Amino acid sequence: MHLPPDASANRVPLLAMFPKLVLSARNRKSPFFDGAVEAGMTHATVYNHMYMPVSYGDPEAEYKRLIEGVAMWDVGVERQVELAGPDAMALAAYLTPRDLSKCKAGQGKYAPLCGFEGQILNDPVLLKLSEELVWLSIADSDMLYWAQAIANMKGFDCRVSEPDVSPLAVQGPLAVEVIARLFGDWVRDLKYFWFQETELDGIPLVLARSGWSKQGGYELYLRDGSRGLELWRLIAEAGRDYGIGPGAPNAVERIESGLLSIGADTDRDSDPFECNLGHLIALDREQDFVGKQALLAKREAGLRRRLVGLTFGGAPVGGNEHPWPLLRDGESIGTARAAAYSPRLATNIALALVDCPHDAPGTHIAVDCLGNRRTATATVLPFIL
Amino acid sequence: MHLPPDASANRVPLLAMFPKLVLSARNRKSPFFDGAVEAGMTHATVYNHMYMPVSYGDPEAEYKRLIEGVAMWDVGVERQVELAGPDAMALAAYLTPRDLSKCKAGQGKYAPLCGFEGQILNDPVLLKLSEELVWLSIADSDMLYWAQAIANMKGFDCRVSEPDVSPLAVQGPLAVEVIARLFGDWVRDLKYFWFQETELDGIPLVLARSGWSKQGGYELYLRDGSRGLELWRLIAEAGRDYGIGPGAPNAVERIESGLLSIGADTDRDSDPFECNLGHLIALDREQDFVGKQALLAKREAGLRRRLVGLTFGGAPVGGNEHPWPLLRDGESIGTARAAAYSPRLATNIALALVDCPHDAPGTHIAVDCLGNRRTATATVLPFIL
Repeated sequence: MHLPPDASANRVPLLAMFPKLVLSARNRKSPFFDGAVEAGMTHATVYNHMYMPVSYGDPEAEYKRLIEGVAMWDVGVERQVELAGPDAMALAAYLTPRDLSKCKAGQGKYAPLCGFEGQILNDPVLLKLSEELVWLSIADSDMLYWAQAIANMKGFDCRVSEPDVSPLAVQGPLAVEVIARLFGDWVRDLKYFWFQETELDGIPLVLARSGWSKQGGYELYLRDGSRGLELWRLIAEAGRDYGIGPGAPNAVERIESGLLSIGADTDRDSDPFECNLGHLIALDREQDFVGKQALLAKREAGLRRRLVGLTFGGAPVGGNEHPWPLLRDGESIGTARAAAYSPRLATNIALALVDCPHDAPGTHIAVDCLGNRRTATATVLPFIL
Repeated sequence: MHLPPDASANRVPLLAMFPKLVLSARNRKSPFFDGAVEAGMTHATVYNHMYMPVSYGDPEAEYKRLIEGVAMWDVGVERQVELAGPDAMALAAYLTPRDLSKCKAGQGKYAPLCGFEGQILNDPVLLKLSEELVWLSIADSDMLYWAQAIANMKGFDCRVSEPDVSPLAVQGPLAVEVIARLFGDWVRDLKYFWFQETELDGIPLVLARSGWSKQGGYELYLRDGSRGLELWRLIAEAGRDYGIGPGAPNAVERIESGLLSIGADTDRDSDPFECNLGHLIALDREQDFVGKQALLAKREAGLRRRLVGLTFGGAPVGGNEHPWPLLRDGESIGTARAAAYSPRLATNIALALVDCPHDAPGTHIAVDCLGNRRTATATVLPFIL
């Protein structure tokens, strides 16, 4: 591994120069791992103590499939924190600032979790299977232990555990055709973020209309880890006529769409307001929840910084290994958290945490891309609606 | 990436076939990352949401340096959970089943953390800097959030945070010479697991006699992340006469020495008794602590399974990508969690979670190494004292 001065400016060398990821028992394989290997996985990362495929060696084709066709993703790393018992919904409501009072069985809700200082810890999708059974489909941090600590110390009548549940995502404009072929036409009427318990060749599943892209699609929550490869192959087979191929949560598309990645776009101090999630924070409800006092104080104090978009020219960037410094008049004003070249916008874009008042749309900001300084313009999110 | 049927049997192809690890802002670089790249890092993993170098491309040389000479490791991933305030020690004592009542300022203690069901969550080294300042130098799980939840819900007067502290380990029989050259002869008298606050060229440090090997050595807890590369180079320079070179927590040596790796050797249900840590679990003290009731019940119920050693012949194994099934008379009796070829013992060895009573030394057990079945013999730990 050897980094040239401006590795970021050139996608292919960057992909080639990464170190090898050593596999051992410390991080787990997803039930779809063998399917991903079979499909030619070349790049991976670790997420929730599991391997997540990131690329199959052809980033352009993977992006195109997602935008114009259909892709299948091993997202088994989206672990579930299961809340089971009479107090399942009460515990969920205590864990998230979002108002869940209108959430129905069969419905999913994006439900950020905050700490006692109002900082954002994770941003799961909550799936309400019943009044007494809730899953939090989490991003990359150990919310199992967090929820166990809070459930126990507060005496909620609710068991918190990690069930044998692993999502596989089918994403892209043709996803609906693949899923309808497998499950029937009822899936066309499934509303966004709603789900249904079902099965496929006897494989127990929860089928949700969801996924970490804005291209439409479904997530199949596999409920029997021993049948992952079988499910993977069934999807690949059903999708063949639609040109399905392997992919992964797409760094380019998710930046274009302004989808949040906890830990990448946020740091230990980030709060929901600066991440543009203020509309989800129900501070005026009577119920207490973790972080309420701190979030009230933050709302009162106003924004310190904000997650905004940046666009900038120059050679297409192939991603960023670490947050890039942002400068104005030589002064540090934040960091670009995630950068990419957008084929649809034909420019470089980034999600950036920018100190106020430099977050105003139109502000010119210097981005230090590994020593190569470029002038960016702040813009509202998302880049592409 | 393409796995032959018995990839495990051959070290070099296994190292070569791993996927590339994509770097992004979601996982952080350690302050020593650029030093590790400069030293030729080829293989890495992710640990506590950071990159940890695993190899520099020559596993035999890295092992030899650790056993016979001196190696320097970027272990910045060993994050600290800082407990600061009047209740720091009271919170620490509530978090671990270990008796801390005799722990003095300047002393470290291996202090496993358990959940409410008595399961092991992490096994940090606790550093007592003062009565009001404690670090938990953690293994790979988000104990920051766990400790924050418990501190807050129980009302401990103690702030829990992640400080800017990153360890660099110097390990091997010649480590003492390198550290003495840099800091003076007083380091020769530092007792095992004790530490001292000090500095090197103005770089603020805590110097501890510790490290995740049984070859002796020190850990330098860097207290200013901006000076990582400087510290890395100072160590490399001071160690030149002793043949220092880069390395990493060594999969072979740690198995030989029976050092526990949480998440690799344990699963979600593992408890301290089955991990041979029963002698550290102070159940008879009056104080309450997390998991006490569950651990009392477990002690009463007796062992279900135990972490033991296995030795087995055949071609040298180059590690295991996932736990290998263990069988006796065709019946599943556990898993081999971490396997390696031991150059010093000239045989294959593994740490294995084995159901009782099959854990008795001398028991013959079949290990399924990716379809290649070998006969192993159970043995007590460690393999090498």
